[in-house]
Amino acid sequence: MGNIFAIRPGHNNALPPIGIGSHLDTQPKGGRYDGILGVISGLEVLRTLHEHGVTTYAPLAIVDWTNEEGARFPPAMLSSGVWAGAFTLAYGHARTDLLDPSVTLKAELARTGFLGDEGCSHASNPLLAHFELHIEQGPILDRAQEAVGIVAGVQSMRWFRIEVVGAEAHTGTTPMECRRDALLGAARMIVAANELSTTEEAAAKQLRMTIAVVESAPQSINTIAGRVVMNLDIRAPADEDVEAAEAACRAAFAGIAEAAGLEVKVEGIWDSEALRFDEVMVGCVRAAAAEVGCEREITSGAGHDSVYTSRRCPTAMIFVRCRDGVSHNPKEYSRPEDCAVGARTLLGAYLRYDGFVRAKYEGR
Amino acid sequence: MGNIFAIRPGHNNALPPIGIGSHLDTQPKGGRYDGILGVISGLEVLRTLHEHGVTTYAPLAIVDWTNEEGARFPPAMLSSGVWAGAFTLAYGHARTDLLDPSVTLKAELARTGFLGDEGCSHASNPLLAHFELHIEQGPILDRAQEAVGIVAGVQSMRWFRIEVVGAEAHTGTTPMECRRDALLGAARMIVAANELSTTEEAAAKQLRMTIAVVESAPQSINTIAGRVVMNLDIRAPADEDVEAAEAACRAAFAGIAEAAGLEVKVEGIWDSEALRFDEVMVGCVRAAAAEVGCEREITSGAGHDSVYTSRRCPTAMIFVRCRDGVSHNPKEYSRPEDCAVGARTLLGAYLRYDGFVRAKYEGR
Repeated sequence: MGNIFAIRPGHNNALPPIGIGSHLDTQPKGGRYDGILGVISGLEVLRTLHEHGVTTYAPLAIVDWTNEEGARFPPAMLSSGVWAGAFTLAYGHARTDLLDPSVTLKAELARTGFLGDEGCSHASNPLLAHFELHIEQGPILDRAQEAVGIVAGVQSMRWFRIEVVGAEAHTGTTPMECRRDALLGAARMIVAANELSTTEEAAAKQLRMTIAVVESAPQSINTIAGRVVMNLDIRAPADEDVEAAEAACRAAFAGIAEAAGLEVKVEGIWDSEALRFDEVMVGCVRAAAAEVGCEREITSGAGHDSVYTSRRCPTAMIFVRCRDGVSHNPKEYSRPEDCAVGARTLLGAYLRYDGFVRAKYEGR
Repeated sequence: MGNIFAIRPGHNNALPPIGIGSHLDTQPKGGRYDGILGVISGLEVLRTLHEHGVTTYAPLAIVDWTNEEGARFPPAMLSSGVWAGAFTLAYGHARTDLLDPSVTLKAELARTGFLGDEGCSHASNPLLAHFELHIEQGPILDRAQEAVGIVAGVQSMRWFRIEVVGAEAHTGTTPMECRRDALLGAARMIVAANELSTTEEAAAKQLRMTIAVVESAPQSINTIAGRVVMNLDIRAPADEDVEAAEAACRAAFAGIAEAAGLEVKVEGIWDSEALRFDEVMVGCVRAAAAEVGCEREITSGAGHDSVYTSRRCPTAMIFVRCRDGVSHNPKEYSRPEDCAVGARTLLGAYLRYDGFVRAKYEGR
């Protein structure tokens, strides 16, 4: 899959390496930090160890996971997914260019010299653990004016397709009380989903609900919308909160539809369960972050390669603040000082975990 | 322009004819009544007069106005518009096929033998008056279970383009309180426009407000909408009520935008002033409708050829009920009994106006 493992030996090379990984690919209109900062920070850790003549207990692997964005070859997190066994290697190789389906990922790996002859699996290339540093891609650290955050886990997420059916009719000749306006019903649902996710209780649960995709038909100024299709995105750190929010949405949408003579269909199209990172690993990040004066814990709202590595080895993440939370945009920016604090936190967390491994295997 | 005037002489052929007109063209997926029923009903009036050996005072013209729908050659009501001087003949002839801009209306009129050598103007082919029978294209008569309605005039209408600008952001990483969600703002505006047009006061003014066209960007499930463009359609019988509704919408939209950190721009793109048909003509329709037990007065929500004829001669319209108010659809349907009642009302109204003309010119 083109994943790159740069391994520096330790004292006990019978053990798999502790990985520090992220990705170098970005979005077509992405920035210079998403993913890239994590790989560069890993290299900085490796170089710092080297410069100081430090030999760690376990080997260290700096990892570049191929095609995390999935921008050219969907889906996202493809190569960490193949490594973790979420996808087969054959599936990964057969993915095609979004714009030119005649080009497979395997052919492009061969053409660019990255196909290699290594396997791609947690069995053939195991990791003892996996740290990932990544820009936050959200505004929490920037608003709190903190350089780094401790990532406790990844949100529970569910996506839905919502179809609202009313009746097309002439806007000029149809009295207000005779209408079955699908777009009006859809608008009430957008507002209702927002209300359900902006109560004090919802805020305490860090519930996030969004409708961002809407298609109305027939899109004619003087014909009342007969059919609207939308997508709903629900997220929260806890699975049960997402489940409760889904139920609340279904009830609210059904009520809106019934009151307006509309039909509504809510259909789940994708979901991802909540993930809590390894307690020991997160503890190492917490201790290292404390040394640079940071203690904020964040649940990641986005997916990362660490979601897949956590299936096969203890995993934890560090977030670095980015300006205004902007990401997937050329304006993406993290200050050099913050990047340095992030790399220092990564080094501290890594060394602590290496000490934990030493204690485990050497009994001291 | 291909308009057809079928003229039956009267006693005083120095006078322009009284017209009974509508159109024979329909929508690509239209029905068999919209427009067509008006021309056929005019022929029925003419035949009935003929069968009974009646000579009217003024001549009678059955008129087929070309291209009322504007479905193939936009805009709508083109040829009655040229006749009335709303458009020049050159403009009308130069209109092109919506799907094949190399074909002009003039070339198609020549090819089909309808170009002719008559002028197309109220000056060269004047009418003393214009009656038009048309299906209602709305549900009022069907709900009231009345066969025909007296059309008092045509609504005032205004169309707007609304642009709402917020900020794109990740749905997973952006807390609810940090968002500037353009689609949420747009949804609140759709709901607000509906609330403003469903009060008791709005119902009394027969105010109708609709948003049926919405485009959200970037249309990605996990990116909060940064920009939404919509169209708003406001109608009411009175110009001042449409104007007040526009002001209320502008204020409501500005308030919604300000509260949510959004920008909103509301721009008028088209309007048509309210039209009251000629009192004497409407009186003739009212008297004829009373004979068939109907007295409901309706303000037309849609445009018709009569909008343009009313600029040049006294005009009035009769509506015939259509099932469920459905129009521009193959399901369009008016029962034969209702069509007969419509034609009878048209005959009665026409004969009354012919009597009015006779009295005016003969002094009796």
